[in-house]
Order: sequence, then structure tokens, then C-alpha cells
Amino acid sequence: MNEHVYKTIEITGSSQKGTDDAVRVAIEKAAQTVHNLRWFKVAETRGCVENGKISYWQVTLDVAFTLE
Amino acid sequence: MNEHVYKTIEITGSSQKGTDDAVRVAIEKAAQTVHNLRWFKVAETRGCVENGKISYWQVTLDVAFTLE
Amino acid sequence: MNEHVYKTIEITGSSQKGTDDAVRVAIEKAAQTVHNLRWFKVAETRGCVENGKISYWQVTLDVAFTLE
Amino acid sequence: MNEHVYKTIEITGSSQKGTDDAVRVAIEKAAQTVHNLRWFKVAETRGCVENGKISYWQVTLDVAFTLE
Amino acid sequence: MNEHVYKTIEITGSSQKGTDDAVRVAIEKAAQTVHNLRWFKVAETRGCVENGKISYWQVTLDVAFTLE
Amino acid sequence: MNEHVYKTIEITGSSQKGTDDAVRVAIEKAAQTVHNLRWFKVAETRGCVENGKISYWQVTLDVAFTLE
Amino acid sequence: MNEHVYKTIEITGSSQKGTDDAVRVAIEKAAQTVHNLRWFKVAETRGCVENGKISYWQVTLDVAFTLE
Amino acid sequence: MNEHVYKTIEITGSSQKGTDDAVRVAIEKAAQTVHNLRWFKVAETRGCVENGKISYWQVTLDVAFTLE
Amino acid sequence: MNEHVYKTIEITGSSQKGTDDAVRVAIEKAAQTVHNLRWFKVAETRGCVENGKISYWQVTLDVAFTLE
Amino acid sequence: MNEHVYKTIEITGSSQKGTDDAVRVAIEKAAQTVHNLRWFKVAETRGCVENGKISYWQVTLDVAFTLE
Amino acid sequence: MNEHVYKTIEITGSSQKGTDDAVRVAIEKAAQTVHNLRWFKVAETRGCVENGKISYWQVTLDVAFTLE
Amino acid sequence: MNEHVYKTIEITGSSQKGTDDAVRVAIEKAAQTVHNLRWFKVAETRGCVENGKISYWQVTLDVAFTLE
Repeated sequence: MNEHVYKTIEITGSSQKGTDDAVRVAIEKAAQTVHNLRWFKVAETRGCVENGKISYWQVTLDVAFTLE
Repeated sequence: MNEHVYKTIEITGSSQKGTDDAVRVAIEKAAQTVHNLRWFKVAETRGCVENGKISYWQVTLDVAFTLE
Repeated sequence: MNEHVYKTIEITGSSQKGTDDAVRVAIEKAAQTVHNLRWFKVAETRGCVENGKISYWQVTLDVAFTLE
Repeated sequence: MNEHVYKTIEITGSSQKGTDDAVRVAIEKAAQTVHNLRWFKVAETRGCVENGKISYWQVTLDVAFTLE
Repeated sequence: MNEHVYKTIEITGSSQKGTDDAVRVAIEKAAQTVHNLRWFKVAETRGCVENGKISYWQVTLDVAFTLE
Repeated sequence: MNEHVYKTIEITGSSQKGTDDAVRVAIEKAAQTVHNLRWFKVAETRGCVENGKISYWQVTLDVAFTLE
Repeated sequence: MNEHVYKTIEITGSSQKGTDDAVRVAIEKAAQTVHNLRWFKVAETRGCVENGKISYWQVTLDVAFTLE
Repeated sequence: MNEHVYKTIEITGSSQKGTDDAVRVAIEKAAQTVHNLRWFKVAETRGCVENGKISYWQVTLDVAFTLE
Repeated sequence: MNEHVYKTIEITGSSQKGTDDAVRVAIEKAAQTVHNLRWFKVAETRGCVENGKISYWQVTLDVAFTLE
Repeated sequence: MNEHVYKTIEITGSSQKGTDDAVRVAIEKAAQTVHNLRWFKVAETRGCVENGKISYWQVTLDVAFTLE
Repeated sequence: MNEHVYKTIEITGSSQKGTDDAVRVAIEKAAQTVHNLRWFKVAETRGCVENGKISYWQVTLDVAFTLE
Repeated sequence: MNEHVYKTIEITGSSQKGTDDAVRVAIEKAAQTVHNLRWFKVAETRGCVENGKISYWQVTLDVAFTLE
């Protein structure tokens, strides 16, 4: 299992609920086209503000998967 | 719309509930005196511990708003 | 009180619930052997993915305590 | 002259022409309300893309001025 | 519109004219195969020197686009 | 006390005596217009040289204060 | 030749022998699907430990290739 | 002598006098329990402000010692 | 297995042979007193030079192990 | 050709016209005393402001050349 | 005056007295062979420990001077 | 011995064999013109790829020597 080669891609998920949900949105979107997702790392957490309230959260992830 | 100039300020919000709530506290405080808040970026997440439990969370944000 | 010396250690907590809970797990584990925990700072947020879903979250903390 | 104290603020200028012009836009906007601007440092260069072309450039600056 | 997921790729454009042109070259090349480009961020600016003169400029960009 | 929101500003103090004195100059200048200063963090230490001797020291600080 | 546009991808190779071999494993795997690989840069070197011995090495690379 | 293995720990010293004294306080405290201290590196310099004056300085150090 | 808490320590190994050997020296020394070592990450690679030749290599590692 | 050894030096060019011209000024100055310049990398972009206008631009470069 | 080109070199001064003195030692040594020193920036502060006491301080500086 | 002043230069060595050999090539080249080399630190590891194989490795070092 140790001889695997991984590829890392960077994706950004967004959510109106919070940071953890923005991560879930990004992972689930990535899983639609990439199999063998293994781990992720949070690269940046941002958000948008409208009328003095947070309208949505954006989390950018480095996501790694096994190259077959 | 593209010709706007933005200013970024750094603020730290704190909360006993968690990180997302500390962000909300910071944004709502900033919105009391600054109009036209547009986006934020998390710069640092810290917290205080008392008697072996997290007593409150502190999140530092870079917050941008339009200069009119 | 100002003359205290602090030591910082780095620990990683994990949780199936989310990032804030992974921080709590790490702090409570550290509190079992280290007294006088004072503050923490999030150094890195990662997670594992199995079958296209987040199986658990991992948060690495720098945790400081007073040297007596 | 050496005993001056400077304050640094972060602003972002945007332009449809290019990066140098975005810096000029930011400096001229800041000069409307802040006197004694002394120097700037480029912190980040970004841009927006519409229909496969750059629609405008955004340059974020740290700008310092003398506190009187 | 907030629920979009973005992917970021890293590309390097080169030009004999200057930095802004190298960015344009990179964006136009990327636009040939990727739709929905949204924004870019300059990651690195380099160049080659031949016979004591700049022969071409190279700018590396992080370019984000919407995943459909 | 935990629910406070802090704002951070960046200032640069200069001194002919040394680094610690440049910090003091910056803090005392800031205290003239900003109340409730709480802590500072050194961001950069520079200096000027004239005729092969240090003519003055410059220390840039991030200074935080409570928003009331 | 100067007008080329490059794309950079991030891959991680692993090896039981050492760091240089982990780089070779990653490059050879990438070469199976990507032509025109030009250069790489080491981004991170890690490894796994089992029973007090290094079981395998992992090297993460940024690898660039020419877009045709 | 070259085959030594070093361990690095992170400690924070504080002082009412200045930065160099805060370093000395940290080293002397560490020397009470750790033998064979070899070198240190300043990681961060902070301070607290009360009533517009610096009340104490805090310097965080990475301190290395020989593992016997 | 996911609920484990890890602690990370920083150690530096040295070797006259090369970088990979310096990592092995550090891991084997750490394994004498710490059980459950899991992974390491290279933080810094340095070396000493005597009479124009490398006399030994020094590699600093962050090493993680499970807290039981 | 691969066995070359390069040396990198850091220089800062200034110009009243803009960033690209400041790079050209630096390269041409360096070429007067150093042969075999090969490539450069932009390390920092700054500028001076007088009376609310940019008086000149300063670009700091890492410039590499072949050691013969 | 604005058309000057600067070169930056990196030097490390050491002192038994403290950090500011280590900077002075470095600047005075550099001034013996390099004219037109203009400014410096502290890059790193380290020190050596012998018998539980600081034996000397080491400060690494980037020092810039005008190329004539 | 503590009162020495060090100068650091940045050089890049290349090798067809591997990373450690590229470091040796750089050190031996530097030793031809600079006496009193003391230590080095790896700043960057890169390589070139031709026909899907690593053609040579490039390691950039910061190398320090005593100023006499």
C-alpha cells in the first residue's frame, strides 16, 4: 500500500451554514468525479458579508487522492 | 463596479460557543461602525483554557470594505 | 503574574463531528497530564475521506501552559 | 525626522488597464483622506476573468504614512 | 450563486513584453480548454536574461473556475 | 470580559537608542489617540545606516486594542 | 520556445528506499499520463514510522509540463 | 560530537525590562530542568500594554538541547 | 482508531553520510524513549563544512506519536 | 550544461515609470559587473509616495548567474 | 536620487552583550569593506547557551547599499 | 571565537546523481573561491525532467563563512 502515488488538487466549497459545512460541500462535489479521495487540508477560510451579516462561508482545500 | 477601492482592517472576535460564532461576533461588531463590509479572511484561530476546558475561542479576521 | 514562563507543545486531536470538537478532544487529552493549560492556537486543519465522505477531522494545536 | 511614527493601512485598488494602474488608483484614493503618505508595498496581485479575458486587475497594498 | 464549488489550477505564462502580458497569455491559453474562469492570483514572477537583457517574463498564476 | 472584540493596527516606531526604545516610542504615540491598548507583536525590525553607523532603529508592531 | 504556457500539478511519491527514490517514483508515475514534463520542485518531505523504524518515505512535488 | 541528536522545545519568557531580559528569563527557567541547552532561536516577540505603557515583554524561543 | 490524539516533537539528527541517514539517526534515537512513533516531516536540512568539505549533515524533523 | 553552479544575488532597481522598468534598471546595472546572468525572480515590490502621487517604484530581485 | 540600484547582502553579527549590540557588530564589520550602506532588516535572532547561561547572541541581517 | 561576523551567500549546485550530490557539488565549487565555509542550509530542491526521467537535480543552499 505504501507504493501509491497521490495527486493533490485545490478546490473551494461554499456554504451558508458554516466552515465545516463548506468543507463537506467541497468534498462531496469532488467525490462526484474523483474516486479514491484520501485526505484534505484546509488552505484558506474566507467569507462574504452582505448588509452586515455573513452571507456565505468559503473554505479552500487541498484534497489528495490515489493515482491508479 | 470594478473601479472600487477596498480597505482591509484586522479584528478579533471571541465566543464561548466556537469558531464560527467568534467570526459572527467580530463581523457584527465591525458592521456597527463600518458600512459596506464585503468579505473576510480568517488570519488566526486561538482560544483560552481554564481548568482544562476551553473557556472561549478567538478568531482574528482580515475584513474588507468599500471606500466610498 | 507577568514573570511566568510558558512552554508550548503541539498536539493533534481528531473527531468525527467537526473541527471545534477535534480541538476539544485535544485539549481534554492534554489536560489529563498537563496542568495549567493557558491558551491554544490552531496550526493546521486536516481530515480523512472514505468512500467520498469525511470520516474524521484532525486539528493540530500549539498549546501553552505555565511552567511552575 | 527619525523620530516619526508611521501607521500602515491595507488597501486594494482595481483597474481595467493593468497592475501598475491599480496601484495608482489605490494610492490616489488613499491620498484623498490621508495626508503624509510615504511608501507602499505590494501585498497581493489578483484579477477577475470574464468570458476568458481579464476584466480587471486588483492589487492590495500596505501603505504607510506619518502620524503627526 | 453562493453554492458553487471552485477548482484552482496553477499555470505559468510567458511574454517578451512584460508581466501583465505574461498574465494575459496564461489566461487566454487556459480559457481554450477551461470554461468559467473566475479569478486569478499571482503566485510568482520570474524572467530569463540573455546577454544582459530580459529575454522574456514568466508569471505563475493560481486560476480558479466554477465546477459545473 | 471574554466577549470583547479587538482591532489590530500596524505602526512603526523609530529611535536612535535601540529596538526596545523604538517599540516604546510607537506604543506611546499610539496611546495618545487610541485607548484600551492591550498587547503588541513585533512584525519587523529594520534600521538606517549613515556613514557606516546605525543612525536609527525602526520597529513595526501590530498593536491590538478593545473596541468599545 | 519562450511563448510556452506551463501547468503545474502536485503529486506525492513514496518509497521504502529514501527521498530521492520517492521523487523518481512520483515522476515516473506522472510521465505515464502527462507528456512534456519539464521540471519539479520539492514541496514537502514526510515519512511513516512502524516499530521505531522508517517504513516508507513520502515526497510531495510540484511538477510542471508544457501545455500544447 | 557530530552524531548527537538534539531536541527542540518552545518556551516563552516574560520581563518588565525588555526583550533581551525576557530571553534570559526563559533560558534560566529551562536550565533548571533541562541540561545540555545548546542554542535558541527567537520565534516571536510580543508584549502587554496597560494604561498606555508596556507592562511586560514576552519572547517565545525555540531552545535546543542534546539528547543523551 | 480515529479518536487518537497525537503529540509532535521536534528533533534534529546528524550524520556524516547524508540527509536520509540523518533522518534515520533521529528516528532511532527518538524510538528509544518514545513508543508509538507514527510519522515525521522534514522541517529543515542543514550541514557543517570543514576545510571545504561537508563534515556532517543535520536534519530537523517534526515527529508525531500517539498519546495513550 | 547541467553541472553548472549558480550564485544568486539580491538587487533592487528603481524607476519613475513602473514595475517592469524598475526590473530592467536592476538587470542592466547588474549586467555591467556580472556576466552570465540567467534568470531573476521578483522578491518584493515597493514604492515611494510624495504629495499623494507615486514618485518612484522599487522592485527587489533575486538574480542568478553561472559561476565559471 | 531615485534611480539608484541597491544590492542586499546577508551577514550575521555576534555579541556577548545582547541583540542590539550584535547588530552593531555586524554593521561595523560590513562598513569596513562596503561603502554606502543604507539600511538593514533583521532576518533572524539566535543565541548560544553554555552551562545554562547565554554565552553570545547572533543576529542575521539583510543589509542594503547603493551600487555606484 | 564568538565575536566572528559571518556572511551568507546563496548558490545552486546540480547533479545527475541525486540531492546530496548536488549539495556536495555546490559546496566544493564555493570552496574554490571562499575560505572559511562554516555551514549551509538547504533553501530549495528542484530538478529537470527529460523524456519522463529526471535528467538532473538542483539544490539551492545558503552557505555561511567567516569574514576575516
